[in-house]
Amino acid sequence: MFPEADAVAPAVTAVFTAVLTEGPISRVALARRLDLSSGAVTKAARPLIDLGYLEELAATERTGPGAGRPASPLAIRADSEFFVGVKITADELIGVVCDLRAQVRVSAHRRLPVADADQVLTQLGELVDDLLDGPGDYRARTRRLGLAVSGDVDPITGLVRYSPFLRWHDVALRERAEKITGLAVTVENDVKALTIAEHWFGEGVGAESFALVTVGAGIGCGLVVGGRLVSGAHGVAGEIGHIGIDVDGPDCHCGSRGCVEAIAGAGAIVRQARLCSGRPSLTFEDAVELARHGDVAVCEVFARAGDAIGAGIAAVANLVGPARIVVSGEGLAAYDLFEPHIRAGFQRRAFGAAADCPLSIRPLPFEEWARGAATVSIKALVAAG
Amino acid sequence: MFPEADAVAPAVTAVFTAVLTEGPISRVALARRLDLSSGAVTKAARPLIDLGYLEELAATERTGPGAGRPASPLAIRADSEFFVGVKITADELIGVVCDLRAQVRVSAHRRLPVADADQVLTQLGELVDDLLDGPGDYRARTRRLGLAVSGDVDPITGLVRYSPFLRWHDVALRERAEKITGLAVTVENDVKALTIAEHWFGEGVGAESFALVTVGAGIGCGLVVGGRLVSGAHGVAGEIGHIGIDVDGPDCHCGSRGCVEAIAGAGAIVRQARLCSGRPSLTFEDAVELARHGDVAVCEVFARAGDAIGAGIAAVANLVGPARIVVSGEGLAAYDLFEPHIRAGFQRRAFGAAADCPLSIRPLPFEEWARGAATVSIKALVAAG
Ligand SMILES: [Zn+2]
Ligand SMILES: [Zn+2]
Repeated sequence: MFPEADAVAPAVTAVFTAVLTEGPISRVALARRLDLSSGAVTKAARPLIDLGYLEELAATERTGPGAGRPASPLAIRADSEFFVGVKITADELIGVVCDLRAQVRVSAHRRLPVADADQVLTQLGELVDDLLDGPGDYRARTRRLGLAVSGDVDPITGLVRYSPFLRWHDVALRERAEKITGLAVTVENDVKALTIAEHWFGEGVGAESFALVTVGAGIGCGLVVGGRLVSGAHGVAGEIGHIGIDVDGPDCHCGSRGCVEAIAGAGAIVRQARLCSGRPSLTFEDAVELARHGDVAVCEVFARAGDAIGAGIAAVANLVGPARIVVSGEGLAAYDLFEPHIRAGFQRRAFGAAADCPLSIRPLPFEEWARGAATVSIKALVAAG
Repeated sequence: MFPEADAVAPAVTAVFTAVLTEGPISRVALARRLDLSSGAVTKAARPLIDLGYLEELAATERTGPGAGRPASPLAIRADSEFFVGVKITADELIGVVCDLRAQVRVSAHRRLPVADADQVLTQLGELVDDLLDGPGDYRARTRRLGLAVSGDVDPITGLVRYSPFLRWHDVALRERAEKITGLAVTVENDVKALTIAEHWFGEGVGAESFALVTVGAGIGCGLVVGGRLVSGAHGVAGEIGHIGIDVDGPDCHCGSRGCVEAIAGAGAIVRQARLCSGRPSLTFEDAVELARHGDVAVCEVFARAGDAIGAGIAAVANLVGPARIVVSGEGLAAYDLFEPHIRAGFQRRAFGAAADCPLSIRPLPFEEWARGAATVSIKALVAAG
């Protein structure tokens, strides 16, 4: 894609990333920010301008003492390319088309009657066609598709090693999705994809370190340290859901007990709410309903869950000390029931100045997971050309 | 010290660090390892050879197909400079002289009747004189002193903000120690200093990520991620001792409860052993003695402590996924009582492949803390010249 496709100069990637995440920004500011000469910035920006990804905004006249040449900030041309992102869950596909600034332009979803790989790939092909051939005419300027899946994913090979919710083992997702869609495909773990989105386009922009905690069926965590996503030397990192916070707590599907997820995962909440309400077929939504109407025992279930999440977050803050922590996920649709208990549980256990770490606790808009998937494909463009 | 003292070229630091931690190593291997041209390696090595820190070993003839010029590996001249390291505890000073390869050449200690800063500084001056003017005649080739202190330390300013064991608040340790000793002083938190020693000269060499866990009066942890020590955006990191693992556990001095340290710190072990033995003045050594003679209740105290340490280590592995974890500290003099329970507690809670993380569990030789302090001053030489 770039002239020297296999070996994009690191300066090109650095300039592209900085303008993407922090632009519009002048060449002078870029040079300072990236510790490059202004000649190197100009040279690195040229192919990006030629390819249409960047543009020079109109010069803003600088006046007063010390004013030199007028500055022409570099900005992203958001509609120079589009990216499809799809989150694959066990019962539906959620898809979006994003522009180069990761703004969602259109979204769609499809129910999945079954989650076996053949079915999912067929449905995926149709969903991508719907997204690209509908209003907006994105097809011509779209070459990339990002997929996000929960579980153990190898982003290098595009293999889904194991996805418990989907019950997939060793699915060559990238290869098969490329065959069906004709797009260049990236595959990433869903929590890591969301973390990349937050790091590049959200509250994590510019942070040397930060953490994203997701609350839902599972409790997950993406960590950025030293500006880079932590992936774990043995392939495991961010497993906040399986930190043990109660030696006498309930058994966890991981084989341990008293894990955060065994207390605060959606399944654990439903189980406890069924017990204390005496309603064996109660759903998560029913539990939320009961708690909002003041059912003391069910409120207590949410309080314990929030406290457990706060304990997990305190462990992250005490160990790693991120600049900020964002807590989100579909479980936070019940945000009002969780939030005060998450904060209290965190504050009680944060060690010293770790309590200063700001927490943002907010629900996760519907398409956010799919946008995360699209962000990974934007990152792939920036890194590899 | 170096010709361009204020702005040592990054390549000089990179070459110095690589030869120090991984040498002897040829220029060709250095160039490959550091992603530098061989000309850049030669240029970076020259001032280090001129200053006497590095030397070229005799060329080793290479034979067989593809053999080019004979390789002359670069090696550290270990006795080109010496470094004093002192760990300051509430009741004694432990001092060593190390060479440039962090080998301990001589050690000494002094009991401290009181730990107030004036007294400690006077004793420190005498200890340094003893070390440098004794056999070995290190004085002439020693310009640097590293100090290690537990608690909240600012290595940039050399200020000890708060050290609970010493009961120090805002002691300008670097400034005062430089005045008394005439040496260039570095000040670092003791656990971080040990972590740097392990990263540069121990089991952490070459690891992109690793963790050092210390077991003693406190339970501490130093973390290296992406090749760099994690210091925490809010000044807190590695506080494994204050991860809560038992919601109904004992109160902790940090204000929370069920912390690893509240179960496994030396004070907690003594407290529990006194209760179950009915001996109100029993010491840690007494508890070890009882357990080694098969006292079931006291064995159980050590088992619970080991399990708690294993739980803390599992939290580190699940969240950060270091390549390896070293567990050490003065508490591990009772190594035989702890080790199987640390391993079992870790294995039970490690999530999936996180259980593959190798644990090294070993006692900490007496001078190791002081050597850690000296290592920080070696690092200061390498970084700044
Ligand atoms: Zn678990
Ligand atoms: Zn504590």
